[in-house]
Amino acid sequence: MHLFFAPEFSDDLPFLPEEEAKHALKVLRLDAGATVSVTDGLGNRYEATIAATDIKKCRLTIRRHEPEYGKKSFTIHVAVAPTKNADRTEWLVEKCVEIGVDEISFINCERSERKYFKLDRVEKIAVAAMKQSLKAYLPRLNDLIPLREFLKKRLPGNNYIAHLVEGERKLLQHIVPPNGTYCVLIGPEGDFTPDEVNVAVAAGFVPASLGSSRLRTETAGMVACHILNLVNS
Amino acid sequence: MHLFFAPEFSDDLPFLPEEEAKHALKVLRLDAGATVSVTDGLGNRYEATIAATDIKKCRLTIRRHEPEYGKKSFTIHVAVAPTKNADRTEWLVEKCVEIGVDEISFINCERSERKYFKLDRVEKIAVAAMKQSLKAYLPRLNDLIPLREFLKKRLPGNNYIAHLVEGERKLLQHIVPPNGTYCVLIGPEGDFTPDEVNVAVAAGFVPASLGSSRLRTETAGMVACHILNLVNS
Repeated sequence: MHLFFAPEFSDDLPFLPEEEAKHALKVLRLDAGATVSVTDGLGNRYEATIAATDIKKCRLTIRRHEPEYGKKSFTIHVAVAPTKNADRTEWLVEKCVEIGVDEISFINCERSERKYFKLDRVEKIAVAAMKQSLKAYLPRLNDLIPLREFLKKRLPGNNYIAHLVEGERKLLQHIVPPNGTYCVLIGPEGDFTPDEVNVAVAAGFVPASLGSSRLRTETAGMVACHILNLVNS
Repeated sequence: MHLFFAPEFSDDLPFLPEEEAKHALKVLRLDAGATVSVTDGLGNRYEATIAATDIKKCRLTIRRHEPEYGKKSFTIHVAVAPTKNADRTEWLVEKCVEIGVDEISFINCERSERKYFKLDRVEKIAVAAMKQSLKAYLPRLNDLIPLREFLKKRLPGNNYIAHLVEGERKLLQHIVPPNGTYCVLIGPEGDFTPDEVNVAVAAGFVPASLGSSRLRTETAGMVACHILNLVNS
């Protein structure tokens, strides 16, 4: 069944946004009476039928409402330095959403090769990946800020920094508790500087290893996200 | 340090292939005496210095030879239906090589949307990913063949099929033994048919789940590869 994204959907406003209505009615050629799924990206999933086939006002009849659809007992926040090649970051967002992520932050590090980053493109990719993987929660995406600003937020929970600087690091999967509120920091192509690692550790981020392979930034982010999902499965 | 790929490299033939020599001498502007790493893709890793700076005959002086560099106690074979969008399969190859894979086969399934597949492009991607992740083993890539032909090979070891057809499936990470000889089958966008699953099960492939998320083909292949690495770490 097709899943549509309608951020303001509710019992009082059972309408598909124009773009989604166009896709449903013109591309998929769904007709009145067709059954569809809808999510507001906030955990609400609806099964509904098309009642009015007007693209500008595509009204649905709600058959079933499932709040907190697919809600998990843990949350994953990936904070990553955008890659030089923007495609690789877009790919990271798509894969994290598919695998399961709650929040993605973009951080500007000393060795970052990309100092600006457009959020609107990855927001579209996140919506597409949420729909494609039939999820009801749209992850929150946060605009690029300096790492040091990010660390000032003093995030609660289980925080990790995946880096390659010399020093003791245990495998992430061996140190994370289940059902946690996780945040993992992933550095740029040239890694975090030793100073950045020190500041992160001082802010409560525990150094962690993602395994023995040397991974690209986007692979590291995706692998960390997958490990955090696996320890909870 | 830069890692170069020289498939015929040995004590008797300590030369970089022309393309690699060009990269070393012209792009990176390395000079005589510069230290480089070389792999033959068969597990041999060399530390060497540049002795002759002729692109057509770039001779190295071997300083150190490490056979079976990074050899693991397990092998991973991913057999996957190429995606409709070839980029996604190329991405899968890159990520599996980075994370760690020994063999990738391409299989033609009933619901495959891509019925032909060029191996030469993914071969180049595998070499680049091997070099980028500093590995000394180049995974074997096998040309597209029908799933039923593939299953006739009667692979020894621990064989799994990741599918979404109704029926009992345990999580892959809960059923794989460590230090195995693994093969995992990943279906096309429309999944395996129930008949294909039956044929695979009859050939000894155990149904396995990759988790509760609905994953794209290339994500499923990468996630399976990562799980098999993780159970051995």
